[in-house]
Amino acid sequence: MPPRGAVITSTANSRVKLVRALRARRERERTGLAWVEGIRATVEALQLGAAIHALVVAPDLLDSDFARDAVAQAAARGVEVLDVSSAVFRSLSGRDGPQGLGAIVRQQWRSLDDVRPAEGDCWVALASVADPGNLGTVLRTCDGAGAEGVILLDASTDPYDPAAMRASMGAVFSRNLVRASFDAFAAWARAAGATVVGASDRAPESYRDADYGSRTVLLMGSEREGLTTEQQSACDRMVSIPMRGRADSLNLAVATSILLYEVLEHREAKMSGTPGGAS
Amino acid sequence: MPPRGAVITSTANSRVKLVRALRARRERERTGLAWVEGIRATVEALQLGAAIHALVVAPDLLDSDFARDAVAQAAARGVEVLDVSSAVFRSLSGRDGPQGLGAIVRQQWRSLDDVRPAEGDCWVALASVADPGNLGTVLRTCDGAGAEGVILLDASTDPYDPAAMRASMGAVFSRNLVRASFDAFAAWARAAGATVVGASDRAPESYRDADYGSRTVLLMGSEREGLTTEQQSACDRMVSIPMRGRADSLNLAVATSILLYEVLEHREAKMSGTPGGAS
Repeated sequence: MPPRGAVITSTANSRVKLVRALRARRERERTGLAWVEGIRATVEALQLGAAIHALVVAPDLLDSDFARDAVAQAAARGVEVLDVSSAVFRSLSGRDGPQGLGAIVRQQWRSLDDVRPAEGDCWVALASVADPGNLGTVLRTCDGAGAEGVILLDASTDPYDPAAMRASMGAVFSRNLVRASFDAFAAWARAAGATVVGASDRAPESYRDADYGSRTVLLMGSEREGLTTEQQSACDRMVSIPMRGRADSLNLAVATSILLYEVLEHREAKMSGTPGGAS
Repeated sequence: MPPRGAVITSTANSRVKLVRALRARRERERTGLAWVEGIRATVEALQLGAAIHALVVAPDLLDSDFARDAVAQAAARGVEVLDVSSAVFRSLSGRDGPQGLGAIVRQQWRSLDDVRPAEGDCWVALASVADPGNLGTVLRTCDGAGAEGVILLDASTDPYDPAAMRASMGAVFSRNLVRASFDAFAAWARAAGATVVGASDRAPESYRDADYGSRTVLLMGSEREGLTTEQQSACDRMVSIPMRGRADSLNLAVATSILLYEVLEHREAKMSGTPGGAS
């Protein structure tokens, strides 16, 4: 077990400066690290086997026995613990009432080449998702619906953005994350025998009637533009969610979630032989 | 047509101070007004027949002919237009790059007593929704799915919060908004003959199999706690959305949206006699 050093009281400490720098995506990309904050989120990261670079604890702020036990257990397993003063912790925190517990985690990405979708698998590919809250919410629904994870294409936002991690409710650690160019993704999907299903409000086929195949990738466009013509042409089929009011689209995370649950209900219906699911 | 007065250049002007005050929910409640900002949102409010108290225009910032035409048309219909300097507009704006157009709108609430659900109608009742983004996203899905609107129970957040209005993409003006105590809501639902369907991760019946009745109210609990025992006992039935991963819940707006689309797919299936829908 690494020794717990003296309490860090200077905001100029190099590790403290590292955590502050992780607010910027550029620094997260450069270091491959991210900052997780709060008791629930940090304990979840520990429980889900996230790669913990170091725990950061402000003993004067952390008044939860549950959290203190989790820190002690992690330290006993060899996880480094940085004790900091409450002033230093506040300088790191993005919150009004910081709880005194956070973690520097190592980002975990899988390579597209290592992903071989098995029968029954479902993935979400996001082309240029811009809002970190939407990305986190999609990850949370992937967890709920039992989907494998998210493939981020081209200029998508960062799942290790604090807002994305918060919205994911831990799913950023439990689901698979992949990054790829659109071209590499399209080639991979063909080679993997996956059915790529795109969503567009103009597609004639309703999402309720579609055949999602036995290995499915849902391809969702950006919040502002949806899928481009080129992206649509890489899809095996296009489906629409009916719009019955004046709006022409749903929130991206909502649309993705409705489709994810539809794919998985089709799977269940197929396995149980219920006539409700598409063949 | 009211005359367009001189350009307001003082941030101490009483109307300018009113707009700034509308950032606080307390002031929105006291005055019954709200502040809408941006070209898209303001033009949408005009098109959807929102009750416009006054348009606020910074001629030096507004460089869209489309928006200028919309302002001129509204002025011709008798809508008051306040011209302000770019400095004054910036003092009102919640944005980095303000577009120079906004509106003071009158909030529009319906009384529960005036709501008589017709056959095929679907409403969402939210018990203590806390996040304005979730509320706005639910309104947006109500529009997309063709649901009537939202009934806000007890201590729910404000649909006229800027984040809620932004997420609603105009649906705050196109859907019905009702506020009520939980007890008044429960009595109303019984009298109206509506089927109140609550959601809980522990309900044995899947949302896919439920009978939603011909007049449906989806009752959704708070983000943190879900429905209380008392709230559940006011439901005619409880349904669950299957959780296949480690998470025990979905984002509130996502769960509500999945259920809304399910209710409306059941309606369509019933009308067309398709066996897929529940009877």
